Amino acid sequence: MAQRKKKASKKKAVKKKASKQRAPARKKASTKKAASKTAPKGGSIVKGRTSPLSRADKKTLSMIEATAERVRTNVGKRVLPELRFPIRSLSNVSYNTRVGYLQIGRGTKARQLSVNTVKNFAQTLRLMAISKEMVENDDFATKREAYYVSKNWDDCKFQEQAESDSVMDDIEALASMDDLSREHLRYYPEEHGGSIAGRLTVVDRDPVSSADIRIDCTAMGTGSYTIPHSVEHLRFDTDARFILVIETGGMFQRLNKHRFWDHARCILIEMGGVPTRATRRFIRRLADDKKLPVYAFVDCDPYGICNIYRTLKVGSGAAAHVNRRFCVPNAKYLGVTPQDIIDFELEDATHPLLPVDIKRAKDALKNDPFFKAQPKWKKAIRQMLKMGVRAEQQAFAKWGLNFVLEEYLPTKLKNPRGFLP
Amino acid sequence: MAQRKKKASKKKAVKKKASKQRAPARKKASTKKAASKTAPKGGSIVKGRTSPLSRADKKTLSMIEATAERVRTNVGKRVLPELRFPIRSLSNVSYNTRVGYLQIGRGTKARQLSVNTVKNFAQTLRLMAISKEMVENDDFATKREAYYVSKNWDDCKFQEQAESDSVMDDIEALASMDDLSREHLRYYPEEHGGSIAGRLTVVDRDPVSSADIRIDCTAMGTGSYTIPHSVEHLRFDTDARFILVIETGGMFQRLNKHRFWDHARCILIEMGGVPTRATRRFIRRLADDKKLPVYAFVDCDPYGICNIYRTLKVGSGAAAHVNRRFCVPNAKYLGVTPQDIIDFELEDATHPLLPVDIKRAKDALKNDPFFKAQPKWKKAIRQMLKMGVRAEQQAFAKWGLNFVLEEYLPTKLKNPRGFLP
Repeated sequence: MAQRKKKASKKKAVKKKASKQRAPARKKASTKKAASKTAPKGGSIVKGRTSPLSRADKKTLSMIEATAERVRTNVGKRVLPELRFPIRSLSNVSYNTRVGYLQIGRGTKARQLSVNTVKNFAQTLRLMAISKEMVENDDFATKREAYYVSKNWDDCKFQEQAESDSVMDDIEALASMDDLSREHLRYYPEEHGGSIAGRLTVVDRDPVSSADIRIDCTAMGTGSYTIPHSVEHLRFDTDARFILVIETGGMFQRLNKHRFWDHARCILIEMGGVPTRATRRFIRRLADDKKLPVYAFVDCDPYGICNIYRTLKVGSGAAAHVNRRFCVPNAKYLGVTPQDIIDFELEDATHPLLPVDIKRAKDALKNDPFFKAQPKWKKAIRQMLKMGVRAEQQAFAKWGLNFVLEEYLPTKLKNPRGFLP
Repeated sequence: MAQRKKKASKKKAVKKKASKQRAPARKKASTKKAASKTAPKGGSIVKGRTSPLSRADKKTLSMIEATAERVRTNVGKRVLPELRFPIRSLSNVSYNTRVGYLQIGRGTKARQLSVNTVKNFAQTLRLMAISKEMVENDDFATKREAYYVSKNWDDCKFQEQAESDSVMDDIEALASMDDLSREHLRYYPEEHGGSIAGRLTVVDRDPVSSADIRIDCTAMGTGSYTIPHSVEHLRFDTDARFILVIETGGMFQRLNKHRFWDHARCILIEMGGVPTRATRRFIRRLADDKKLPVYAFVDCDPYGICNIYRTLKVGSGAAAHVNRRFCVPNAKYLGVTPQDIIDFELEDATHPLLPVDIKRAKDALKNDPFFKAQPKWKKAIRQMLKMGVRAEQQAFAKWGLNFVLEEYLPTKLKNPRGFLP
């Protein structure tokens, strides 16, 4: 540990010198010297790493070093190096109710270094090199920042963010073979995390002092706690009985304002549409760690069911290589169900299904491995198609603004076994 | 006070009886009995009002009662009643640098009750009646919920949310003549509030017990505090020197992660694009209350300058009747400026202005009362048009991920007098 620190500070000194020369005010910035992008400067605002490398950090560094080593060895032996990725398409995805998420198959494809792939190959290795620096310095980059960092790479720079995103998808797929995610590589999405209120204390770590920070989500007043972009280091303390995951901010505010979490002894999490990666991972870690059931409360329409809920529970097809970590297989669907529209007399607060809704529902029945494996869902989706209408979670307001928390949720929560899978 | 309580509990008992009959499970719901939508039920989850009416609440109730009284008196005298609204269009808006925001003029229009307006007239009065109940019961509704509440109004119900939104805009305009906003009427937007981290303690009130809740925004770890939908009741405690308002979540996370707020002794607020009403009002109240300067850090492009920053500082033309409360006239523009692109050598990290950008910038120069009154802005926008490029706040990543907080911001913050107005 002491040795690592010493090395780090030596490195710091060298990089400080280099960075002095690259400040734009001095008009001397050379691309060579600007290569080390994340190096902390001595005595500066950015402190660099203050806590020891986690196990996942070490694994990430090993993966990057092993990949680079393989490439270098091949080059040394005058063999064309290659990188190997899992195939990401529906043809290479399966769903098994016991596994609980859309699982990627064993198919892989190789990309060999050639005249055509040389730029892409170099970009992949450079982004991995930055990843290594970020892990070492306990820093991160958004996908947008990663794109801009390349502007100093001369011929190798990205012209559009779509290019760097695509390379990053490859890197993530490559890392997924070692059970690592993009967040382990320190590339974070730009998304706005979900909001939390209720009987939960999140134990975070001060990024500078490494001291524990306890965030009491019962003490946010009418506001809430926002889930950070990376949640792997968080710990939890709770006496809640379940997690209620909510589609819309308006419904979340209503339940929070009336302290539904206190009454029902639960944790409220707002997704704001399809949940972000960080939100899904947060719910998953919390549910696993504290053995809490997860109930989803979303609109009764094909988007709420086939996109929002499906992604929460089993992940997505396009990102099948990360589903293992970024979904919540034990989630259940509290509502709104097509049957709720009848039971709670919401008929005149519904809207007709649009052609796009009908298409989405039929697609789910026909092509989605999750819904195909769940007879109860097939029945519910067919019922919705037959009724020809959709209902939002706000529709209960027809019966009074607080009907939803005085009647609907308590009635439903009496029988979680009746929830859709 | 004691008398009011007594009245309230009597009311409660009556409403409890009524609401028992309207539960859908009993299939007895009558539209008449379901009219009182926000009444708390005795012994139920929703506690109703636990704190005394605020001054603004009393003013809101007076405004609603006076409006209803005027209509009733006219009807009693067999005179056609009318409602009077300020005219909301650019023709009735002005900007004066001393006033500091886009100000609505004195023009008003009247809507008289007639065969053509009767439905709209009735809807306006019903939404105001619900507003009165919500103030009395300390509740709120989203615009979407307000739309659904009408589903029990028989002939008077809204067919589309666009209809109820338009009526609500009218009510807000009407209320603005008494210096009241939609939030005072308890209709809250569905938007996601901005995030906060840094040297600020927000003092909120527990909605049920009315006890003070202190939220320490230095103790959110890598997460943050989300601004609630209504901020009028919040109080503040801070030793910060300024407020830094940031366009993107990614930049906010970077500054928060490296505790820039500690180093620079400031408060960080993420807008996530054009700031929501609650975010603008929060910044305004905090800045006024604590006499703090507000510095905006957004992308150097026509959208960042003419939409995000302009709305933050002086409000919008379409909602001119609420600008007085929902903007921050003392805000200044830290960057990114067109000159920054040159000074910090960002040229190769820029993107060409698109036709839509050029149109927006030219429109601002020609038609926007704010930019027309600010010679420095006219010069800066012309410079951007001449350069033909735009730069995002992430573009500094070209010089290293943390260049922005180690070099750019400290350099700029040395000279706030140089900020654009």
